[in-house]
Amino acid sequence: MIKITFPDGNVREYEAGTSSMDIAKSISEGLAKKILVAEVNGEVWDATRPIQADASLKLLTWDDATGKNTFWHSSAHLMAEAVESMYPGVKFWVGPPLENGFYYDMDLGDRQMGEEDLAAIEAKMNELAKQNNPYIREEIAKKDAVSYFFEKDDEYKLDLLHNLEDGHITLYKQGNFTDLCRGPHIPSTGHIKAIKLTNIAGAYWKGDEKNKQLTRLYGITFPNSKMLDEYLLMLEEAKKRDHRKLGKELSIFCFDDEVGQGLPLWMPNGTIIIEELERLAKETEEAAGYKRVVTPHIAKESLYLTSGHLPYYQESMYPPMELDGTKYYLKAMNCPHHHKIFDAEPRSYKDLPLRLAEYGTCYRYEQSGELMGLMRVRCLHMNDAHIYCTREQFGDEFRAVNDMYLKYFNIFGIDKYVMRLSLHDPAKLGQKYVNEPELWKETEAMVRDVLIESKIPFVEVQDEAAFYGPKIDVQIWSVIGREFTLATNQVDFAQGRRFNLSYNSTENKPEVPLIIHRAPLGTHERFIGFLLEHYAGKFPLWLAPLQVKLLPISDKFMDYCQDVLKQFRAAGIRAEIDDRNEKIGKKIRDTELMKVPYMLVIGEKEMNDQSGALRIQGQGDQGVIKIDELVARMKKDISDRV
Amino acid sequence: MIKITFPDGNVREYEAGTSSMDIAKSISEGLAKKILVAEVNGEVWDATRPIQADASLKLLTWDDATGKNTFWHSSAHLMAEAVESMYPGVKFWVGPPLENGFYYDMDLGDRQMGEEDLAAIEAKMNELAKQNNPYIREEIAKKDAVSYFFEKDDEYKLDLLHNLEDGHITLYKQGNFTDLCRGPHIPSTGHIKAIKLTNIAGAYWKGDEKNKQLTRLYGITFPNSKMLDEYLLMLEEAKKRDHRKLGKELSIFCFDDEVGQGLPLWMPNGTIIIEELERLAKETEEAAGYKRVVTPHIAKESLYLTSGHLPYYQESMYPPMELDGTKYYLKAMNCPHHHKIFDAEPRSYKDLPLRLAEYGTCYRYEQSGELMGLMRVRCLHMNDAHIYCTREQFGDEFRAVNDMYLKYFNIFGIDKYVMRLSLHDPAKLGQKYVNEPELWKETEAMVRDVLIESKIPFVEVQDEAAFYGPKIDVQIWSVIGREFTLATNQVDFAQGRRFNLSYNSTENKPEVPLIIHRAPLGTHERFIGFLLEHYAGKFPLWLAPLQVKLLPISDKFMDYCQDVLKQFRAAGIRAEIDDRNEKIGKKIRDTELMKVPYMLVIGEKEMNDQSGALRIQGQGDQGVIKIDELVARMKKDISDRV
Repeated sequence: MIKITFPDGNVREYEAGTSSMDIAKSISEGLAKKILVAEVNGEVWDATRPIQADASLKLLTWDDATGKNTFWHSSAHLMAEAVESMYPGVKFWVGPPLENGFYYDMDLGDRQMGEEDLAAIEAKMNELAKQNNPYIREEIAKKDAVSYFFEKDDEYKLDLLHNLEDGHITLYKQGNFTDLCRGPHIPSTGHIKAIKLTNIAGAYWKGDEKNKQLTRLYGITFPNSKMLDEYLLMLEEAKKRDHRKLGKELSIFCFDDEVGQGLPLWMPNGTIIIEELERLAKETEEAAGYKRVVTPHIAKESLYLTSGHLPYYQESMYPPMELDGTKYYLKAMNCPHHHKIFDAEPRSYKDLPLRLAEYGTCYRYEQSGELMGLMRVRCLHMNDAHIYCTREQFGDEFRAVNDMYLKYFNIFGIDKYVMRLSLHDPAKLGQKYVNEPELWKETEAMVRDVLIESKIPFVEVQDEAAFYGPKIDVQIWSVIGREFTLATNQVDFAQGRRFNLSYNSTENKPEVPLIIHRAPLGTHERFIGFLLEHYAGKFPLWLAPLQVKLLPISDKFMDYCQDVLKQFRAAGIRAEIDDRNEKIGKKIRDTELMKVPYMLVIGEKEMNDQSGALRIQGQGDQGVIKIDELVARMKKDISDRV
Repeated sequence: MIKITFPDGNVREYEAGTSSMDIAKSISEGLAKKILVAEVNGEVWDATRPIQADASLKLLTWDDATGKNTFWHSSAHLMAEAVESMYPGVKFWVGPPLENGFYYDMDLGDRQMGEEDLAAIEAKMNELAKQNNPYIREEIAKKDAVSYFFEKDDEYKLDLLHNLEDGHITLYKQGNFTDLCRGPHIPSTGHIKAIKLTNIAGAYWKGDEKNKQLTRLYGITFPNSKMLDEYLLMLEEAKKRDHRKLGKELSIFCFDDEVGQGLPLWMPNGTIIIEELERLAKETEEAAGYKRVVTPHIAKESLYLTSGHLPYYQESMYPPMELDGTKYYLKAMNCPHHHKIFDAEPRSYKDLPLRLAEYGTCYRYEQSGELMGLMRVRCLHMNDAHIYCTREQFGDEFRAVNDMYLKYFNIFGIDKYVMRLSLHDPAKLGQKYVNEPELWKETEAMVRDVLIESKIPFVEVQDEAAFYGPKIDVQIWSVIGREFTLATNQVDFAQGRRFNLSYNSTENKPEVPLIIHRAPLGTHERFIGFLLEHYAGKFPLWLAPLQVKLLPISDKFMDYCQDVLKQFRAAGIRAEIDDRNEKIGKKIRDTELMKVPYMLVIGEKEMNDQSGALRIQGQGDQGVIKIDELVARMKKDISDRV
């Protein structure tokens, strides 16, 4: 008998050689049907693989990221099986899972494959999935594997075998398909109930354009067809809401070849959104006792040697500018500059917590292939701040940061979010993690308590903390269900010491402050990209670049419109007149297209009683309203940010 | 007889060989006494030098920059005469005039000179000045000059003679002193009525540290002692108001070796001033119809090749960052980025004038020897904007820009200012100046008209325009009389063409817009440096980092102070409590030292009737005032920016 320990600490005994699937069945048949794969002693295994000794066990389903990844990896094998049956002699390179779905790279020889062939491959995959063939793991000696793929004349798998070590090589088989694969896989193809091949593209072997071009086939699969339908609907909606498309239509931002890739130019409409977001951040941070600073965008090499960003972070930084024997770097983060401001004056415990905030612009050299609209850029306006505090103050400060996140989520209608708490591994103290066992325990516990107390949904991840302390990654979902990584929240015990920062304690001794790095609104670039999709470009009143447009029915009402315009502008409301010589219907349609939240149609009657006929974006005609009443109402809504 | 043409166009006849001084005397003895030097056919001459042919003539006095420079250059000769009489055998290198005063570099051989010797030299200079010796010009053949200085064993003047051309060599003599000098000089030493030697320092010959170290003696002189007294008072006041000293005392900014020279870090107090200035600029610019943009701090080399900044401006730019075969430069100006935003969408005459504004941060590599506090930095936050307009719109736009300058001067109490209008030289069209004779004439006339109309004091300078159009440099004086160059205002016909910018004209044809570059508040760095001196750190209420400090007489009143604090903060007033356990007298003194404009002393009586005892910086006790009344009054003063 062997002892199996479950995540809740329960221990049960099973016969040696039992599988995770057997164990799941022993709990309930319903559970067993959902099990895709299992974590055995922290390693991911096929659910059908026999367990021979005492072990800890975590059963994984579609709802676990690892379960989902395995599902997609197994789907790639299913796709390969379908392709091989239709294109005999096809050779496969690699077929990994993606954030959404999977792909497989293949060499079709002289044959062509196009969009028009995808439906037939899908049909074949569905047919093979219905056969519910098991994925079978087989350990194989290296020489046997080499011999097998040599006979098949498969130079791709032979290439992979070069880097594999004898004793750790496995094949996976399902139906008539065999692949060299480390695994693991789901129990059988029958789990795959809904299949969509999404794209076909060329891809150079090993990403090197000197090599042969292979065919890359993308797909996505789900355990039921409702999920696939929802996903396709979300994709369609996301396409309509694509921030690059909306950004151009609404004149939010642009790129220019002579300026450079990944370096957005913010046009007047985008700049209004930036300034509204900054105003929100400044008000919120001021109320929370932050102080603002402004720091340069460059610094000498020595600053980044002190911080340790050089050499560890060098590949993400722009190369240095060297002059008069000194190297200057564009900053990729604001912390070292803020530490220098902390250090510019003697500090006492009475000055703490000191919260230094800056919408600091950082530069990171992302690979050009990685750049994508506002989502992956090289210039980042960060909603940054660093909180210097004592150990006693840490809990309250961390709680306040979390409250600020929740406040923002509420303002922007972000209903779905999760915080991913990354912890250290005590076995790696002094190597991967700064050697402060007590501080790790203390701050991890404090952070966990704050998350539990504030009822924020969170998951814990072992051994993924930053070098200098536990961190939280904040994931949010747009209204159409797409996931975005918004921001990182980090505890830091190390930088204070590296920068020799200290404050005079209550005992009149120098102490190193704890530091919290936080950026709840992330960067303007990513957050505005997210908001464009989230709102489909229909920004709420307070954020809208143009808040109200006046549409005179004819030129006769221009003078009156000018008066009304002045009233709006005096109240700080962004207003314009559509003074074109167009029919009112066209004026309304064009204003709707520009997604202006309010419009005011103005004719004889409205002029005579100091009013306008109000239309609200998405809500249509609201009837006639007095100008002063509308101004008051809009002012209130803007200041309430609704 | 020769014809002399005066600046007003009048022509009078004189005998050939008459001097400017003779001519001045013919006009009035009073004028003649003030003449220091004269411009003859655009060349500066000794006032005593005979004029042999028809000429244009401008008589120069102390009030002309050239008159003042000559006065100081002649004073350097006077100083040399005094030193030579006291240190026989001393050898002189060069002795130029400075912005304020003059210096002379000298080789004293084995002798020493120190601060303690300056009074005696001053006395000697006064004695020699009273002799009223004339400065006598003598043309000399090169071989005679070489022989003269060879006999004197003067290797310094011999070195200078290497670079002089025979036929253009002159000596100047006054009293017992003779110097190799191009001149010109003032008529006689008697003009120099007030003398102060200000500093003595070492200076390597030719500025090269491998050469011998000479003694550099600095001085300043005036035509009367009242001016000297005022100057010394101003220096003393400027020392107290030194922005570097105040910047540190008031925690406005700091520098850090690891960040780099000339790269200020703005601390919380400085950042408040920055944000208030930006708010003022944004409000002002919004009311004037500007639109804001945000652009990155870097761009590819090709952008600056298009603009022409490379290679012409290269030495002022940071060196490039080269990666993946592309060179990126830190921007030294915002215009190219703004041009790209103009160019991002099709433009029509209906979109003009388009005014794009940005508090853009630029980087310029000033030589480390040139760096000085906030006055000469490498990181510049510019109050920048570019106005794209038609030729018809140009006059109104330029006028509006000027009005904005005057509005700002009024807000900051800048009473003394002058605009320096730099014009082109028609002879250099197509070489030094873009070849658009009509546009030059038209825009120069428009600019001049605007300056005359708005009664702005201005001077015209020939042949100093920018390549692409006339420009205006704005000089302002701080309250203690120091001069600062605030900003440049430029008309630009060239960049529009270089960037291929165009708008669709009323005739449906592409036209190149005119561009106005303007930055009325200059850079944060220089302007805040100026304001620190101008206000002696005592910022007006609206700009003050801390606006009111609450001083409880004892701990008993802390709760009440907290209530009052909340009332101030709710009204957007920056307030703090002095919660130290100190006597009220010390609290008041410390708050005065930090130059906080308002302080409120709080005791029993004040607590009981919701009031405070008000003290205003520099005005002392103002009596007891109700809190709500004070809040209302301060809110109004802040919003009026008084």
